[in-house]
Amino acid sequence: MIKSSTLLAGASALLFSTAAFANSHDPAAIQTKALQDSLAYEITEGLTTEVGPRQAGTEAEARARDWSVAKLKSLGFQNVRNEPFMMPTWVRGAETAEVTGPYPQKMHVTALGNSASTGAAGIEAEVAYFDSLAAMQAVPDGSLAGKIAFVTHDMHRTQDGSSYGAYGPVRWIGPSVASKKGAVAYVIKSIGTDHHRNPHTGNMNFAEGVKPIPAGALSLPDADNLERMIKLGKPVTLKLVMTPQNIGQQESGNVIAEVTGSDSSKGMILIACHLDSWDLAPGAFDDAAGCGIVTAAAKHIMDHGQPLRTIRILWAGAEEVGLWGGKAYAKAHTGSNHAIAMESDFGADSVWRVEFNLPDGAENIEKQIAQALLPLGVSANGPPATGGADVRDIIASNNLAVIDLQQDGTRYFDLHHTPDDTLDKIDPKQMRQNVAAWSTVLSIIANSDADFTMPAKE
Amino acid sequence: MIKSSTLLAGASALLFSTAAFANSHDPAAIQTKALQDSLAYEITEGLTTEVGPRQAGTEAEARARDWSVAKLKSLGFQNVRNEPFMMPTWVRGAETAEVTGPYPQKMHVTALGNSASTGAAGIEAEVAYFDSLAAMQAVPDGSLAGKIAFVTHDMHRTQDGSSYGAYGPVRWIGPSVASKKGAVAYVIKSIGTDHHRNPHTGNMNFAEGVKPIPAGALSLPDADNLERMIKLGKPVTLKLVMTPQNIGQQESGNVIAEVTGSDSSKGMILIACHLDSWDLAPGAFDDAAGCGIVTAAAKHIMDHGQPLRTIRILWAGAEEVGLWGGKAYAKAHTGSNHAIAMESDFGADSVWRVEFNLPDGAENIEKQIAQALLPLGVSANGPPATGGADVRDIIASNNLAVIDLQQDGTRYFDLHHTPDDTLDKIDPKQMRQNVAAWSTVLSIIANSDADFTMPAKE
Repeated sequence: MIKSSTLLAGASALLFSTAAFANSHDPAAIQTKALQDSLAYEITEGLTTEVGPRQAGTEAEARARDWSVAKLKSLGFQNVRNEPFMMPTWVRGAETAEVTGPYPQKMHVTALGNSASTGAAGIEAEVAYFDSLAAMQAVPDGSLAGKIAFVTHDMHRTQDGSSYGAYGPVRWIGPSVASKKGAVAYVIKSIGTDHHRNPHTGNMNFAEGVKPIPAGALSLPDADNLERMIKLGKPVTLKLVMTPQNIGQQESGNVIAEVTGSDSSKGMILIACHLDSWDLAPGAFDDAAGCGIVTAAAKHIMDHGQPLRTIRILWAGAEEVGLWGGKAYAKAHTGSNHAIAMESDFGADSVWRVEFNLPDGAENIEKQIAQALLPLGVSANGPPATGGADVRDIIASNNLAVIDLQQDGTRYFDLHHTPDDTLDKIDPKQMRQNVAAWSTVLSIIANSDADFTMPAKE
Repeated sequence: MIKSSTLLAGASALLFSTAAFANSHDPAAIQTKALQDSLAYEITEGLTTEVGPRQAGTEAEARARDWSVAKLKSLGFQNVRNEPFMMPTWVRGAETAEVTGPYPQKMHVTALGNSASTGAAGIEAEVAYFDSLAAMQAVPDGSLAGKIAFVTHDMHRTQDGSSYGAYGPVRWIGPSVASKKGAVAYVIKSIGTDHHRNPHTGNMNFAEGVKPIPAGALSLPDADNLERMIKLGKPVTLKLVMTPQNIGQQESGNVIAEVTGSDSSKGMILIACHLDSWDLAPGAFDDAAGCGIVTAAAKHIMDHGQPLRTIRILWAGAEEVGLWGGKAYAKAHTGSNHAIAMESDFGADSVWRVEFNLPDGAENIEKQIAQALLPLGVSANGPPATGGADVRDIIASNNLAVIDLQQDGTRYFDLHHTPDDTLDKIDPKQMRQNVAAWSTVLSIIANSDADFTMPAKE
């Protein structure tokens, strides 16, 4: 089967111009070309400049989809389309915070996704401070009645971003815990690693049966300041005004484009990013860059001639607010013929490690990829690949093989979900390294007739 | 005269405990001690935490004065007092900006000091873009009728801060030029060098006879985004809402404290900073740090025993909004016996150069200071010292000698006048180096009976 496929790919190649096939999808040649890439930056620049912030379910995300469909068509991709879906939508209102005593001063706050509203008049209450989520969890239910609970944390920068998993629960779980303990509102030190007055928003959900309360994030310098005030020993009062609203089911959509392969019987390579961003910033790192990187890589493959397998590009909608795009994609495409899923959704700094979750028998492919990535400073030998948020559901439902190109996350949580996620944060050189790594991997896997079928799960 | 004074200082020293005089104001010993300083940071932490932003003429600056008088008294300084004065006061209102077409998105803006109001309904108009102040100056009067003028610049980081002088006119003069050309409002790329969504405010004044118009600063990433939009070729419209107000004459004040010298006939050493900050931030770099540094240095001198000359500490009010504190000080103290003026108002990063403007005959003092500062990484051989903003008027009116300890300004304009000017920006180690440099200089000049009288100006 391997041989006949190889012959078929060879025959197919003959149908194309020699110019287009001059490099015959040679990974090294494609890598060299991709290191000169300008398309990834161009897409990121276009989305951040011509569209800007594009929160899921809003008219801004709809404008982003229109922009994206037009852009992907203009680049020559096939089967470009929008696959719409509906999702519940929460939108930000006014948001202010100020210490009212004993050291009155304004603070920078932003509401967390799905926060309740304080009402326009706001909530003023004494702050109950905890230096960790565990410390708040340890107090009795009802003991925070009438208080604004305030939780800090000790998150530091990590290359692999693992500190987000360690401290993220302060945002994800904290609001429910605070509500259960009786707090009238909840504020956190932003889940981030920067030193700027730009709070980090992000999604959270109240646990079933828990009363939603207003929940916001202070910028890190403000949280540190509030902590210092509290440590001076006098009761500190905070006034919060946050007036977000739930506006019900709204339309989002997944934008899809393809480089069709020469053999439609071969499972396709799904490469994903997400199109939506939080409302606070144009979302350059999160995740216009990812869309730029995967699309530029697919374009480099396309420009070298038709690959064996179809490469499907997914610019998912509504990732930030609940992974609705990934769920909708899995619902629509479970059972269709995918081989491998990949995603870029961690900024635009250099890829430093490749991770695999491929079936037994694909060791040669792993070795070939690892070898081909060495000139880019990318090493193998990491943990098994798990895939990004927008391909998680299709990986699960279709039991797919996965390859992860891990990006350097050292400064990712300086910017994540803040107003500061702007185009100037993109380092074009590191972005080109990403495109080269992706192009290299795609040139190998999209032209491989290896069997990527994963063993059935027990 | 030199000899008799030396004897007098020696005699005076004998009146104090041996412990206090163990080091006899030895500059090297004081420097070593000052490198362990914690007071400068403590003052900066106190002002930023317990007071916060303290705009001149507001109740916040009044709270800052109360805090300062109490603090300076508690440290054991003498003649601690507030010298009140009145000054015109402008306060910020609401401020929002959004591109309304063709690429709708919100931008971060802040009003410049003395900006007119757009009214609550705001002003929406097409943007007229200029890549420099000179380019706007070159168009005919009246040619910007109905437009919002927008000027960018190419400011980069400089160690000596000289790029502020080069690009500052975009803020200082630009509003008047835009008004004269007929613009309905004026926005600039913030005069700064950072990459954050925190615009830089700052003072400006409309030239006589020029109609005040709303004038604001966009954050640097927003200004870059607006510039990219304009370069796409379509007319870009911006909506600005900024509602500042003039609230008339309000009280500010200069907080003063002294280490009284043993010989009141000797001119005193005036060391200054400013207590007020802009309203957007707690003003750690600008200029709580300066107050911390000069005060800690004076305390180290005091702790080593009474110096020959009085050291007067001036925490000036109302610097940011028009140098009113420096003017009031000069008005009140012209003719009183000062010898040398110094100021710290450029953050808290290391001192890298000492500059002098001393009379002929003080060469030995210059040499002694230059030599004593070498272990701190401070070199001499700069241009003549000119003094800081709060001592400029007393230098002029009393024809004073000046010494400047130049701080590294490389990152100063990342923070200057932004919400980001917070305590976490202080590097305690560099701050201690500042205190050591100031203590070293004070130990020499406050105990010197050299004649610092400047030659009369022609």
